[in-house]
This record gives sequence, C-alpha cells and structure tokens, in this order.
Amino acid sequence: MTFRSGSQEAIHALAARNAILSDSPNTPFSKAVLESSAVSISFHIDAVSGSGRVGRLVTPHGEIETPVFMPVGTLASVKGVPQDLLEDLGVQILLGNTYHLYLRPGVETVRRLGGLHEFMSWPRSILTDSGGFQVFSLSDLRKVTEEGVTFRSHLDGSSHFFSPESAMAAQIGLGADIIMAFDECTEYPAEAKRLRESMDLTLRWAERSKKYFEDHKQEVPWANSPALRRSSTNGTSSLDATQALFGIVQGGMDHDLRLESALRTLEIGFPGYAIGGLSVGEPRDMTREIVESTLEHLPKDQPRYLMGVGTPQEIAQYAKLGVDMMDCVLPTRAARHGLLFTSEGKVSIKQARYAADNGPLDPACLCRVCTRYSRAYLRHLYASNEVLAQVLNTVHNLSFYLDTMRAVRHSISLGAKAHLFSVDSSQPKP
Amino acid sequence: MTFRSGSQEAIHALAARNAILSDSPNTPFSKAVLESSAVSISFHIDAVSGSGRVGRLVTPHGEIETPVFMPVGTLASVKGVPQDLLEDLGVQILLGNTYHLYLRPGVETVRRLGGLHEFMSWPRSILTDSGGFQVFSLSDLRKVTEEGVTFRSHLDGSSHFFSPESAMAAQIGLGADIIMAFDECTEYPAEAKRLRESMDLTLRWAERSKKYFEDHKQEVPWANSPALRRSSTNGTSSLDATQALFGIVQGGMDHDLRLESALRTLEIGFPGYAIGGLSVGEPRDMTREIVESTLEHLPKDQPRYLMGVGTPQEIAQYAKLGVDMMDCVLPTRAARHGLLFTSEGKVSIKQARYAADNGPLDPACLCRVCTRYSRAYLRHLYASNEVLAQVLNTVHNLSFYLDTMRAVRHSISLGAKAHLFSVDSSQPKP
Repeated sequence: MTFRSGSQEAIHALAARNAILSDSPNTPFSKAVLESSAVSISFHIDAVSGSGRVGRLVTPHGEIETPVFMPVGTLASVKGVPQDLLEDLGVQILLGNTYHLYLRPGVETVRRLGGLHEFMSWPRSILTDSGGFQVFSLSDLRKVTEEGVTFRSHLDGSSHFFSPESAMAAQIGLGADIIMAFDECTEYPAEAKRLRESMDLTLRWAERSKKYFEDHKQEVPWANSPALRRSSTNGTSSLDATQALFGIVQGGMDHDLRLESALRTLEIGFPGYAIGGLSVGEPRDMTREIVESTLEHLPKDQPRYLMGVGTPQEIAQYAKLGVDMMDCVLPTRAARHGLLFTSEGKVSIKQARYAADNGPLDPACLCRVCTRYSRAYLRHLYASNEVLAQVLNTVHNLSFYLDTMRAVRHSISLGAKAHLFSVDSSQPKP
Repeated sequence: MTFRSGSQEAIHALAARNAILSDSPNTPFSKAVLESSAVSISFHIDAVSGSGRVGRLVTPHGEIETPVFMPVGTLASVKGVPQDLLEDLGVQILLGNTYHLYLRPGVETVRRLGGLHEFMSWPRSILTDSGGFQVFSLSDLRKVTEEGVTFRSHLDGSSHFFSPESAMAAQIGLGADIIMAFDECTEYPAEAKRLRESMDLTLRWAERSKKYFEDHKQEVPWANSPALRRSSTNGTSSLDATQALFGIVQGGMDHDLRLESALRTLEIGFPGYAIGGLSVGEPRDMTREIVESTLEHLPKDQPRYLMGVGTPQEIAQYAKLGVDMMDCVLPTRAARHGLLFTSEGKVSIKQARYAADNGPLDPACLCRVCTRYSRAYLRHLYASNEVLAQVLNTVHNLSFYLDTMRAVRHSISLGAKAHLFSVDSSQPKP
C-alpha cells in the first residue's frame, strides 16, 4: 500500500480512539468521548452489543434513533406517501437525491422556498446524496475529468456539469441536515489501476468538497435559525444550525484500497463516514466482506453510513455489524412492482393465488395496511393498476423496514443489558 | 301524453303527499310522515329552507347527512386515497361502479369475500350504479334489445350481457347499501320517437329490476346480519339489513316525458328516486331546467338523487333545489389532471406561475393538503409526475366538495331557523 504522508499517524490515532471503545464493548460509554467534534450534529451511543450499537444522532431538525433505515424520497417525495403518513410510520430521516432535485424543480427554486424541509413540508431530518451515484447510474454520456463530471440529463438529454464545488453548492442550497462529499462511484468489476485512480480522485474531490463546504456552510437556507439551534443531548454544548458533511469511502472490492481510502478520508476529517461504491452488481457475499473490513477502519464514535443497502435481512445484518445508517430504494421500488416484504417472506401480490385471500398481508404486522386490508384487496388494486396499490404497498414495505430496525435496536439494547446483568451477577455481593 | 292506467291516480297521490310537506315548507315535519316505507333505509328531513332540505339517510352501514356528495370509487377505490383518509374527510357514502367491478375483480369474488364493504374495508355506506351508464359511455359495440344489453369490455373486447335481472344479481352480489335499477341512458340529442321508446324500455326494465330484487334481496352477502340490523332513528321501527333499490327517471330533455317517466316510476314504487340521463353533453342550462321540472314530480319525503353532477357551484345549486344525493367523477378526475377547486376559483396547478408560490393552495381551506403543502410543492409534484400529486390533489378536491356540501347543509339549516324565528316573533307574546 502506498499511503500519503500522515496516514501512519492516522492509523495510530484511529486505533487509539477505537481502543477506548473496544476495551468495554458492552458497557455504556462516557458521553463526552462519544460526542462528535462536529458542531452541527451530535452522536451518542447508548448501548453496544457485539459490534452493533444503539444510538441517537441529533441534527438541527431532530433526533434520529440509530441504527436507522432512511426511506428514499428522490424528488422530495417518497413516491405515493403523504408526509403525515411517513411521520406516523416513525420515519425520522429521509433521503433526497441531489441529481434529481437539481434537475427538477432545481436547486435555486428549493433554496428560495427555504430549503427542502420547508419545500416538502418535512420538519424532521433529511440527508442528500451528492449526485455522484445517480450520475454514475442514470445519466448518459458521462465524462469524468479531474475537475468534475459532465453528464446528460436522463430526462431531456441536456448537458450538465457537477464538480465537488457545484455538488456542495447544490446540497447547501437544498439544505438537508446531512450532505455527502462528491465522489466517483467506481463501476464493478474494475481493474486495479482503474480502482486506485478512481479512489484517488474521490479523495481529492473529498478535500475539495470539504473546503467548499467549510467556506460556504453558512449559506444554508436555514443557517443558524434560532429555532433550529439546540442544546446537545447532554447539555454540554450547543449545536450550530448548519449542515454536516460526511465523507465517503471508496476503493471497489479491494480490501487494501478500502483501508487506504478509509484512513485518508479520516485524515481529511468528517463528522460521519459512509461506505460507498457497493450494491453495484457485485455478489452479496463480497458486499458483506467489504463492509465488514471497512467498518474496522472507521471511528467507532462517529456515525457510519452504508449507502444503498439492502434487503430486510441485510439491513438487520449490517446494523448488527455496527452500521448506523442505511438507505435503499428496495422497499419503495419493490412496492411499486407488487413485491412485499413480510414476516413470512416475500409476497408477490400480483399472483392470482391471492385473488380470494381474505387474510392480512402479514398477520404479524400492525401497520395501517395489514390491520385494515386483505391480500385479495391488495391484489385487486395491483391487478387493476389502481394508484392506491402503490400507496398501500409502499406504506407496508416501509413499515416493515422500520419495524425491522426497531427490532434490531431492541435486540442490541437487550444484548447490552444482558451483558451488564451477567457482569453484575458475577460481582461478589456487598 | 299517453299515461298508462293508474298514472292519473299516481299524480293525485303524489300531489296529496307533497302537499303535506308544501303546507309548511319551513317547519320541521312529523318524522312519522317522512319515514320511508322501505324497510332497509330510512330518510328523515330535519330542516327545509326554500326547496332545499337537510336530512339524514340511514342505511344498514350508517347515517348519511343530506344533501350529500358521494365520491366515486370506481374499482373499489377512490383513486389514490386510502380509506382512512376518506373517513377523515368525513365521507359517509361512496359510489362504486357495477360495470367496472363486474369486469374486475368480478362480482363472485367480491361476494365470496363478504361484499364490497368487507372487500375494500369500508364500513360506511356504499351505493352502486346499475352499469347502464358505463355500458352507454365506455363499451364498444353495444347492442340493446328488450332483454338487455350486449356489450364489449373496454378492457379486452370480450363480450358480455347485462339484463335488468343480471344487473340486479351483480349489485346484490356486490352488496352496496343502495343499488340502482337497470336503465338505458338515452343519448343526447335524440329524436322524440327514440326518447319515448328508450324511456318505455327503462320503465319495463325498472319493473323487472324491482321484481328480481324483491325475489333475491335476501341474497346480499350481509343479509340480515345482526350487527347491521338497527333501529331507525326515531326508534319506532327496526331496519332490515338488506339493500334498498332506487328507481331512475329518464326521458331525455323532454319535460313531458320526464313527468311521465317520474310518475310511472313512482307507480312501480321505490324507496328513493334518481334523475338519470343528464350530463350527457347537453347545455348546462338545459340540465338545470330538466332537474327543476323533474324534482317537482318526485315525492318530497323520499331521497332524490341526481346522477353524475357536477361542479362545486352546481352541486350547491342543486342541493338548494332539493336534491339530496349527487355523485360525479369531476373532483377526482380533475385532480388527476392537476385541476383544483378552491374558494378563489379553479387552479391549474401545472402552470409555471405556481413554481415559486409558497402560499397554500386555498387559504380558506383547512384540509390536510392546504394546511401543510405549498402551491410550489404541489406544482413540483405534478410537473414531476409524482404519484403523490394525485393523492394530494384528490384529497383536496374531495375536501372542497364535502366542505361545499357542509356549507349548503348549514345554510339550509340556518334558513329554516331564520324562518322559524320570524314566524315565532310574529306571534303575539303570551
């Protein structure tokens, strides 16, 4: 591995910081240790069991219980679901897509209207991606240079340009609570040389992203709004009402490159770190291996975000491995195709076998769909192309994902308590 | 006019019955007088002002405040709106389309699943049309004989046959609270001979509809369910848990034929009467004239239903003329095309002028759309083909229609009270 100057120090610093946490993996931490150094968000870990941890991420727009699944609201809407139903589902943070919002309705429109929260009337937290992944996956005629990416809109073929600076400007204008560094999502498979060059480019872009963000973060539409300035949970510091910029680790499916990317991204320094460049066509086992090895290189006291993952089983699995945040289009997109996740497995509601099935979609689910409608009705709506099919299917799938994360958080909390109890009972009684 | 034997008696009987009401048009009626003779619904008029009246229509599935606007739920769904949102809007009765439900998911499927209420999880009242209008407006290669109508499905071109008997069987299987006689909706314009023949056919079909219904009404999926057998509001009688069949007055745009159709339909005898065959392309003034003249020939103590009307102004106008029930696809269909009804007039939300408009759609509206979202956001959703546009637009338009009817009911009630007060104050004080 060829590390830049300072990387060895980064390894030692990370090892020392993580060691504090590793020494007592199943006991509550000193909150001071876990307080992020960032001024706009704070992250508190309340319980740890194995590698998994339960915490609270506080942004200017509210507190998020982690590990959290973030529903995707591409164009300032989780397709088909009104915001009050999302609130009822317990959604605490939504993801918006910068690429899509940049094209429609345009960053300047959203900025003038007060930012995404105001625009879509969503008072809770929002995260935007940097546009890098959509440019990679959606647009035609992509051309990547050191400066940035020229691409054509998937809507009308018009030509556009994203650089780290313009992607930051866009995300500052949109005004999510958490924004992402502009990265290159490396395709899979890729040669070693291509992987390294792409990773190096992402690192240079990360530095430029951070510099632009630090210089311009006061321009967020709700900058330092008194209503949004809040005390951190432990009351020792107040949080600025600005955004938080997360870095993204790339490096393809190469463990060494992932380590290098992680350490060099840490050197740049962000209040949270994402693992990007996965779910791009690689085998699922490979995804897991890369996630596991990359997690080891990320600070344990900061939020860790795995981008674009996954199935209900996967989000539970990764949460237990210590991922704090995840997003995926799967629950919403699958819903639109009549594919529903249940405690009894996947249900393809379009199938004729459900035409006369009067039972609930998922007998174990307490969502407003499963407690009210039958499989027969859902099947009829889907087969008849009724829009309500998309609404109800999406509500159920999101409910299932959020319930899955609630169960994981509960399980980690219980695991931590069980450990404490066993420690306590092994102590001699006074 | 050529009346059948007995029609003269019908005129006299109607005149006598209406006279009871006309003598004291602005005072509360004896409930006993207004109690419908039907065993499955009851209708109570609580206040009258001018020709308009405020009442309560009680069906096996609940009480409906009249005049009422009935949202159209063609395929067992008000397109895009979950049932709990309809409940929140105050919807007390929905309309289902027999033609559509007969094709998808099929009457037998709905019947086996307990009927429409159970199938779509809608515990409140439902009315189904007879299929006659959709056969008239949607299907190809319609062929009308004395026996019934052969038509081709608009979905797949398959051939089907509706007779008065099969249309009743379908509606009994679907199990709405109120069902409609099978009629021929006469096209506009039509020659005098064609109008009379069509009207005569509808009358013969009305007799056949009633006969089949009376012979088979116990076959409704929820027949005499103990849970649905309820005391009438005044406690003097109990209502059977069966459906109520309404007759339909036809006669095109000919006042004499409308009178004859009304009287001969009354002779057959139904617990409620509809005015059909309007909104088929005739000028709006003509619609109004026909409605006004036909209303005069309908019993004042029974519910009067104007089919397929209309704009917010029209439903208010017709309610004040004494119509008790209306349905129309306009609020839901217009919503899907971005056309919204507001207290300030119609808004075409797709227009670019709303792209940066941070104000509510209708400042005077308290619905969940107007109190939460901006015109800019609604415009963005529509322009971006987001499904949420349809959901929110439909919720608002329905809210506007239901508010309109609430205002009309309030206005009629106030008018009745004002009259009482002026009568009271003209009395010498004791």
